[in-house]
Amino acid sequence: MSTNFTNGEANRDHESLITPLLSSQRSLVNSTSQVAIVGAHVCPIESLDYEIAENDFFKQDWRSRGKMQIFQYVLMKWLLCFLIGLIVSLIGFFNNLAVENIAGMKFVVTSNMMMLNKFGMAFLVFSVSNLILTLAYLNGVDAPGIFSLRTLVIKIIGSITAVSSSLLVGKAGPMVHTGACVAALLGQGGSKRFKLTWRWLRFFKNDRDRRDLVTCGSAAGMAAAFRAPVGGVLFALEEMASWWRSALLWRSFFTTAVVAIVLRALIDFCLSGKCGLFGKGGLIMFDVYSESVTYHLIDVLPVLTLGAIGGILGSLYNFLLDKVLRIYSRINEKGVALQNFTCLCNFHFHFLSSFWTTMACLIKNTNFEFQYPSILIFFVTCYFLSIISFGIVAPAGLFIPVIVTGASYGRFVGMLVGSHSNLDHGLYAVLGAASFLAGSMRMTVSLCVIILELTNNLLLLPLIMLVLLVSKTVADAFNSNIYDLIMNAKGFPYLETHTEPYMRQLTVGDVVRGPLQVFQGIEKVGNIVHVLSTTSHNGFPVIDEPPLSESPVLYGLILRAHVIELLKKKAFMPTPVPIGTDALNLFSAGDFLKRGSGNGDKIEDLQFTEEEMEMFLDLHPFTNASPYTVVETMSLAKALILFREVGLRHLMVTPKISGRSPVVGILTRHDFMPGHILGLHPMLTRSRWKRLRIRAPRIFKLF
Amino acid sequence: MSTNFTNGEANRDHESLITPLLSSQRSLVNSTSQVAIVGAHVCPIESLDYEIAENDFFKQDWRSRGKMQIFQYVLMKWLLCFLIGLIVSLIGFFNNLAVENIAGMKFVVTSNMMMLNKFGMAFLVFSVSNLILTLAYLNGVDAPGIFSLRTLVIKIIGSITAVSSSLLVGKAGPMVHTGACVAALLGQGGSKRFKLTWRWLRFFKNDRDRRDLVTCGSAAGMAAAFRAPVGGVLFALEEMASWWRSALLWRSFFTTAVVAIVLRALIDFCLSGKCGLFGKGGLIMFDVYSESVTYHLIDVLPVLTLGAIGGILGSLYNFLLDKVLRIYSRINEKGVALQNFTCLCNFHFHFLSSFWTTMACLIKNTNFEFQYPSILIFFVTCYFLSIISFGIVAPAGLFIPVIVTGASYGRFVGMLVGSHSNLDHGLYAVLGAASFLAGSMRMTVSLCVIILELTNNLLLLPLIMLVLLVSKTVADAFNSNIYDLIMNAKGFPYLETHTEPYMRQLTVGDVVRGPLQVFQGIEKVGNIVHVLSTTSHNGFPVIDEPPLSESPVLYGLILRAHVIELLKKKAFMPTPVPIGTDALNLFSAGDFLKRGSGNGDKIEDLQFTEEEMEMFLDLHPFTNASPYTVVETMSLAKALILFREVGLRHLMVTPKISGRSPVVGILTRHDFMPGHILGLHPMLTRSRWKRLRIRAPRIFKLF
Repeated sequence: MSTNFTNGEANRDHESLITPLLSSQRSLVNSTSQVAIVGAHVCPIESLDYEIAENDFFKQDWRSRGKMQIFQYVLMKWLLCFLIGLIVSLIGFFNNLAVENIAGMKFVVTSNMMMLNKFGMAFLVFSVSNLILTLAYLNGVDAPGIFSLRTLVIKIIGSITAVSSSLLVGKAGPMVHTGACVAALLGQGGSKRFKLTWRWLRFFKNDRDRRDLVTCGSAAGMAAAFRAPVGGVLFALEEMASWWRSALLWRSFFTTAVVAIVLRALIDFCLSGKCGLFGKGGLIMFDVYSESVTYHLIDVLPVLTLGAIGGILGSLYNFLLDKVLRIYSRINEKGVALQNFTCLCNFHFHFLSSFWTTMACLIKNTNFEFQYPSILIFFVTCYFLSIISFGIVAPAGLFIPVIVTGASYGRFVGMLVGSHSNLDHGLYAVLGAASFLAGSMRMTVSLCVIILELTNNLLLLPLIMLVLLVSKTVADAFNSNIYDLIMNAKGFPYLETHTEPYMRQLTVGDVVRGPLQVFQGIEKVGNIVHVLSTTSHNGFPVIDEPPLSESPVLYGLILRAHVIELLKKKAFMPTPVPIGTDALNLFSAGDFLKRGSGNGDKIEDLQFTEEEMEMFLDLHPFTNASPYTVVETMSLAKALILFREVGLRHLMVTPKISGRSPVVGILTRHDFMPGHILGLHPMLTRSRWKRLRIRAPRIFKLF
Repeated sequence: MSTNFTNGEANRDHESLITPLLSSQRSLVNSTSQVAIVGAHVCPIESLDYEIAENDFFKQDWRSRGKMQIFQYVLMKWLLCFLIGLIVSLIGFFNNLAVENIAGMKFVVTSNMMMLNKFGMAFLVFSVSNLILTLAYLNGVDAPGIFSLRTLVIKIIGSITAVSSSLLVGKAGPMVHTGACVAALLGQGGSKRFKLTWRWLRFFKNDRDRRDLVTCGSAAGMAAAFRAPVGGVLFALEEMASWWRSALLWRSFFTTAVVAIVLRALIDFCLSGKCGLFGKGGLIMFDVYSESVTYHLIDVLPVLTLGAIGGILGSLYNFLLDKVLRIYSRINEKGVALQNFTCLCNFHFHFLSSFWTTMACLIKNTNFEFQYPSILIFFVTCYFLSIISFGIVAPAGLFIPVIVTGASYGRFVGMLVGSHSNLDHGLYAVLGAASFLAGSMRMTVSLCVIILELTNNLLLLPLIMLVLLVSKTVADAFNSNIYDLIMNAKGFPYLETHTEPYMRQLTVGDVVRGPLQVFQGIEKVGNIVHVLSTTSHNGFPVIDEPPLSESPVLYGLILRAHVIELLKKKAFMPTPVPIGTDALNLFSAGDFLKRGSGNGDKIEDLQFTEEEMEMFLDLHPFTNASPYTVVETMSLAKALILFREVGLRHLMVTPKISGRSPVVGILTRHDFMPGHILGLHPMLTRSRWKRLRIRAPRIFKLF
């Protein structure tokens, strides 16, 4: 009896833990859909919507997890980061070796060409810079196949051949993309197509984990390219990531630490001369350490000038690069990319035998006497050559060309100042590189640390900071950073952090126009199929109308991918009655996993009989029942902040005055783009726009 | 005629620019209150609510700004950052000089005592660590007077005397607080009380700008304390700031660059021996650079052990410190703080003549032979002495004691390993310091850079990263970082970034209970005064009821501070009719400025006649008409994310089913605290809570 009682007690207690807490007290149950609650492994809500919590991991009932399983999960996470670091640093090592071994060989250009021909499909990917794609992805702009296994292979081979054929292109950009690819591939459990899937990786198949991993991967790529682990983390933080979390700092630090340690171990291994020049120079690429760097207040003036000119040169560089890229993209449309590429290659081939050596010479060799004309010619050639090289259809980085150009300019200034300064020419080259980098890329802390890790001269820090500040300030007065410019030129719907002044003049109600497609809580299959095939929306509001509720109520938001999954399973009912949570039993955790980019099912692939079209589908259990909402009279600026900070994909707009339809519309990323706003409002003419915006919204030019 | 026409046209055009855009087309005007739109200078919405945009600056009509004025504003911003950097680095300089000059003098302890007696009022402030207060402020927990001019003065003098009287306390914490004070004082336009106000600084009198400035100030403080400009920025980013924006990175980088340059200039100035030891050693405090640090894979094992033990020691340190602080706070309540302080001082005075020198010796002197017993005794003494020293009623930092303890422990391990390792004892000391820092503070990137900038040895980077990782991982298994522990012990309502699992089991509707106080759009003065004096809420919903609208509508949110300002002006009306935007003319931009901490008016200070109490006040023009809202069925976890990411103070909860009251409640910071939730629900017992939370919510212990 007492045992029974205890059992009963235990059962009841267990039950009360399973059912939403305190339901006896509440008038309304927690309406968050179970799918949404269970989280990460089931619910690929297409947003960074943070309800998908980190440790939502084991099957449906998250409370069944023991300490051991949590530990296992955490361990897997770390293992993943470790693998990313390991693979990326090995790729970096392989990259280095390969470049060294095939550099200067005549056949490189030809092989490069052949490779490109073979993988012709990848042209679209290549025509956009490596780094930009990763940047766009981390902002929430996904493109099909950017992180596929094929992209990874092409990127590695392409980057090696491009660099070793003495093109004036760098390897940092491709390395960042490579790192991102590795991370994304590991995160989606390998590549299904090539039968390389690991089951234990399925838990990371959701937007948020994938985005976190890609951030770590890009940090690892940067760290491997410059052997700058801390710089890599900061680069990912300052430039790459659009949504930063403190956990991410720790994880990307771990990844780059693995890179640093593996690189150091490889250097140790290579010291015996087994792998060419790899181990030479150790961790520091351009070591300019000197016991006591002596500089005084009098040296500040030339340094300031250097910074200011660097800023001007940098912004001009961005302007020209932007123009050249626009021309290239027009040429590419006409299919003459290959000719353009060959021609450039040959030109380079004869001109610059190895700019890498020159760079090292510029920065490190303090005694070498350069001639004024030769260094000037070198600077001008590098400046323009790197601009025309970047847009070609090959994996190209910007960092190295900018550094070499900046170093030559800095050295030139150093020579001009001559004996009036205490700093030697090598240090001027470093400062010049810093100023040109800041003028073009507009980063601060990450550039500072990368330069530090490249040159190993901490005493120079105050001067480097000064140069970075001056250069960035000057350049910002002219245009925006190079990545923004390319992003605009390519027309990505990149979501900025800041709001434009005109956004405070508009309400969200102004922006969400056009027909709104909604689903009933229990919807006819025919209607669903019709809506899905006639629209391309990725999310739909679910509304309960009488008799399901007293008055129309916004029940939640359902994603296209989930609806398609439901249709595929054909869990239809002949009559419109709620089926409740039983429906969840029809699905396994894997069904709602986020697919690899571009691999989702399409509505066109599904076939339905006439009979099925007349049946019903209960959407309730699969709906995210607590989406973020805003009132239609909220200013667009505020809505953008919410959208941006929380990392949303869909934002429901509710009416100010109740009684009308419970939802007015859905805000998506595109609704915040100036072009969209301009198009919607005939009264908002361009001239008027111009007066309203005050600060020019740069993206505006596109539309 | 034609002139008239043109004028008319121009007028119309001008008008249409002033009136909300496209109003002719819209059914609803942009309901964002003008006060809220005009922004920063008028509207101290007590949140980081980002509608207060950066460049909302000049009087009411923001469109009247010209390019020149924007430029001027930007310039002012930079000037402010420059001033912060300058002042903080000068304070750091002064600090150093003073410590050096009075160190070892007998009268220090006495003078310290006297000073403390005189400023007895500041005890409350002192009894909490310097850094913690700044940390709490940046999370949104404001305490009266933490950044006042008096606090600043006491902090500087106190820190100097504490350090120079050979207490085992550091200066990093006080320097961070000093930096924050300087920034806050500059941001609020100086100190009104001491007649030090600058008019041009009034534009920064709002929560957001002040918070940004304090972040920059803390970065500057850290940079000045360790001469680590990049480390300072990263410290502010990783540990201090709760809300980080990319603009902030750039601005804090600027501030610490000023610190670096000024420090470098001062070193230059001091080289001639004018200021004691200040210039000695240059920018790098513990330079351990060596041409080629040789270490191989075999050295990794002792380093890993070092990291693991460092982690254990660090978490034990945190545990003990937490306990000791709790004991101290009980002692302080009984008023015996002073005795405790004196006794400690004397003890220290005799024991450690100068731990700073010892530290330098431990790290830098590679040849010096320490005895096993002596270094062990030194380690144990430092370990426990720093724990009991920290809680005393004096400005004390944690960094230096932790570094010296860690260095002694590292050196000890290095001596044990002896000739089996390629690394010398000095490097072991550095690694030991790193492991102990990571074990106690749990930072990664910022610690790494700070150690780099302290020791100038980039080649050691992979090992330092490894040690930090291992140590942090081990320590995290035991307890949380020292700042979290102290924060919990002090009971600050600190808002964490992550959500606890139980939060997904609760809806916001569960949490907002208790009587809700609302205002009508046009409210009787008597009611307002009654509500304000009987509640302590800082924000109230404003509701329009018939006849103002067809059905009850949530108009917006009004802040207590604004209502009090309205009452002060006594702009009352005899009848309840809307007065429209004319009301704004009664107020100048300065009226709604955010006051310095704790200086707001109180409702008790206002007097009203019987007649006035019967009059009406139109709240509409002063209401923030588009507050962020959530539906009552949203899970608490999601609401917390919104609250935390957007930086809110008040979050309105609307009903799921329309027709009831348009607002269910307001969520504030306290509603997310476990204690609050626990208290509200009798069914949520502690044992049940324990099972639900899975990951222990650490703050739980408090309640």
